[in-house]
Amino acid sequence: MAYTPGVARVSLAIHEDSAKAWSLTIKGNTVAVISDGTAVLGLGDIGPEAAMPVMEGKALLFKEFAGVDAFPLCLATKEVDCIVEFVKAVAPTFGAINLENISAPRCFEIERRLRAELDIPVFHDEQHGTAIVVLAALMNALRVVDKHAAEVKVVVVGAGAAGVACTEILLAHGVRNIMVCDIDGVLYADRPGLDPVRMALAARTNPSGERGMANDTLLGADVLVGVSGPGAVSEAAVRRMAARPVVFAMANPEPEVRVEAVGDDVEIMATGRPDYPNQSNNVLAFPGVFRGALNVRARTINEAMKLAAAQAIAGVVADDELHAEYIIPSVFNREVVKAVALAVARAAEASGVARRSGTTEAEAT
Amino acid sequence: MAYTPGVARVSLAIHEDSAKAWSLTIKGNTVAVISDGTAVLGLGDIGPEAAMPVMEGKALLFKEFAGVDAFPLCLATKEVDCIVEFVKAVAPTFGAINLENISAPRCFEIERRLRAELDIPVFHDEQHGTAIVVLAALMNALRVVDKHAAEVKVVVVGAGAAGVACTEILLAHGVRNIMVCDIDGVLYADRPGLDPVRMALAARTNPSGERGMANDTLLGADVLVGVSGPGAVSEAAVRRMAARPVVFAMANPEPEVRVEAVGDDVEIMATGRPDYPNQSNNVLAFPGVFRGALNVRARTINEAMKLAAAQAIAGVVADDELHAEYIIPSVFNREVVKAVALAVARAAEASGVARRSGTTEAEAT
Repeated sequence: MAYTPGVARVSLAIHEDSAKAWSLTIKGNTVAVISDGTAVLGLGDIGPEAAMPVMEGKALLFKEFAGVDAFPLCLATKEVDCIVEFVKAVAPTFGAINLENISAPRCFEIERRLRAELDIPVFHDEQHGTAIVVLAALMNALRVVDKHAAEVKVVVVGAGAAGVACTEILLAHGVRNIMVCDIDGVLYADRPGLDPVRMALAARTNPSGERGMANDTLLGADVLVGVSGPGAVSEAAVRRMAARPVVFAMANPEPEVRVEAVGDDVEIMATGRPDYPNQSNNVLAFPGVFRGALNVRARTINEAMKLAAAQAIAGVVADDELHAEYIIPSVFNREVVKAVALAVARAAEASGVARRSGTTEAEAT
Repeated sequence: MAYTPGVARVSLAIHEDSAKAWSLTIKGNTVAVISDGTAVLGLGDIGPEAAMPVMEGKALLFKEFAGVDAFPLCLATKEVDCIVEFVKAVAPTFGAINLENISAPRCFEIERRLRAELDIPVFHDEQHGTAIVVLAALMNALRVVDKHAAEVKVVVVGAGAAGVACTEILLAHGVRNIMVCDIDGVLYADRPGLDPVRMALAARTNPSGERGMANDTLLGADVLVGVSGPGAVSEAAVRRMAARPVVFAMANPEPEVRVEAVGDDVEIMATGRPDYPNQSNNVLAFPGVFRGALNVRARTINEAMKLAAAQAIAGVVADDELHAEYIIPSVFNREVVKAVALAVARAAEASGVARRSGTTEAEAT
């Protein structure tokens, strides 16, 4: 019987030293998958009940790929303050928080406030999972086309959750000439009507001060990162990119441009779809990222850990395997989660956010 | 892959008819075990991290006894408003809410507001689980001592969560002459300094207007229900009860009076302990109560369902088995959860709070 006085001793031990919750309760291996159902797949704001199957699927992937126990919590509120208070209240139960399918720009404030207030990782997967996979794909794509991050022109089409996070990680990786486009065209420093998130993005991108629509901006671009929706750029504009063009069309299930239409004109193409080469799916990132963070009881998931995760994913593709149709490992490649978890754990230790060290490869899965 | 477009169809089906969440997601078999860690076992306010092992144990019992998937959520807030908003926000994920180890009098307001606002059952186990088991024990005890509920004098010692709920269910069962005692003695209608909960209780109990301390009130009482702590009544006072006295000393692990001290003087004694006869443990009630409520997708757990649960527990003890040392079935008797689930489901249907009918005995576990 779990009701015996024995459990009181466990509770008392944690009461005396709350850090013991990591080893004596489910906290150490349990992640909350939290959504308000406002930005679910391509379905939009369908509410908490209808979001539940997606969160359940996510929890299954956590368990299947990384042995992480994830529990879905779908919230009957869209208020930023309420969601922040909710997650703060529930945090003691969990070792990390995965925010999922929360619409922009609310997702930015929710994540920012929670990261500031909680001592466990808070990770919005639409943002950072996507960004990590895009950076991994870019690293290997640039090796294939023999270009360098500091020199390429990258156009990010879409300034929502994924677009903002992709831009941030590409800047952190050393991309300098990067443009971000929303429905009104490329962001530039004084563009009227920008919200605070886009204003901050405009200040750090578009160094040459270009103006125009996304299709104009693609002229001479080396890399297109589509995190928008089908039709966001024209096929003709893709054909006006620089030599050896790289196109990541991440919208799912319908990419920004059709593989059939531009596949022969671009050198490397990646999508989120399993029926084309180079499937770029968040499942390459989040299981290993959380596994690694939990393994060292990380206080946060910082930029260094995300960069390490991207590098680890890219590194799973061996030099002699790398080619235009294999820049990213298969989602079924079990080496990915091991490599990512280890890299993330080491980066956490190196950056001083790990509660414990001594990670071994054996622990990484 | 759970990421295929297939999951979108499930989400859309629920978006069109939210009732489908009961069958298409974990909702239909999943209970939240929610605590703020303020009233944990005999340990008191030990906080959410330290409460976690107890909630995990509870979740194990739910699964082991009733096949119910329960998930523990320990909250980093003690504010009534925050807890209410939290539970409302998380409710779409779950088929029922089990409140656990929340201190009085906050637990009363939290439960009352949640019951009013949610369309799934909200059940505070310290209150109603205890009350159901006490009523079951009383039903069988009165058969042994050949007395009737409408005629006995019952003294409830302790006016916290369990005391209030025990009194309510005994009144609902037809006990008329019932006294409730707190640390200042018996409640009576105009006693100064009563909080609203005790004021309401005073108005409905102590029909003869007795005054005095708990020990005084026990004079001539037929039944003592101790839901307080060791030493709350004296052994001498227990010996001044009426003929064929019945004593339920529920405080755990140390009962209100020692079995060794008064066992020879009372006809029937029950405690929460496994090392004495008549162990009265909430595990006799909550697994079957929630199993039955979930089986018919009940909107609430009402008084009729609680009374039915108590009757079902009492009924597991066959007439020819019933005696002073066997008034309540063993916590390991697997018939209990089946009987309780079926009775609760039927009571839910009969009282119009079931979302679906046609419960069968097979479904009851």
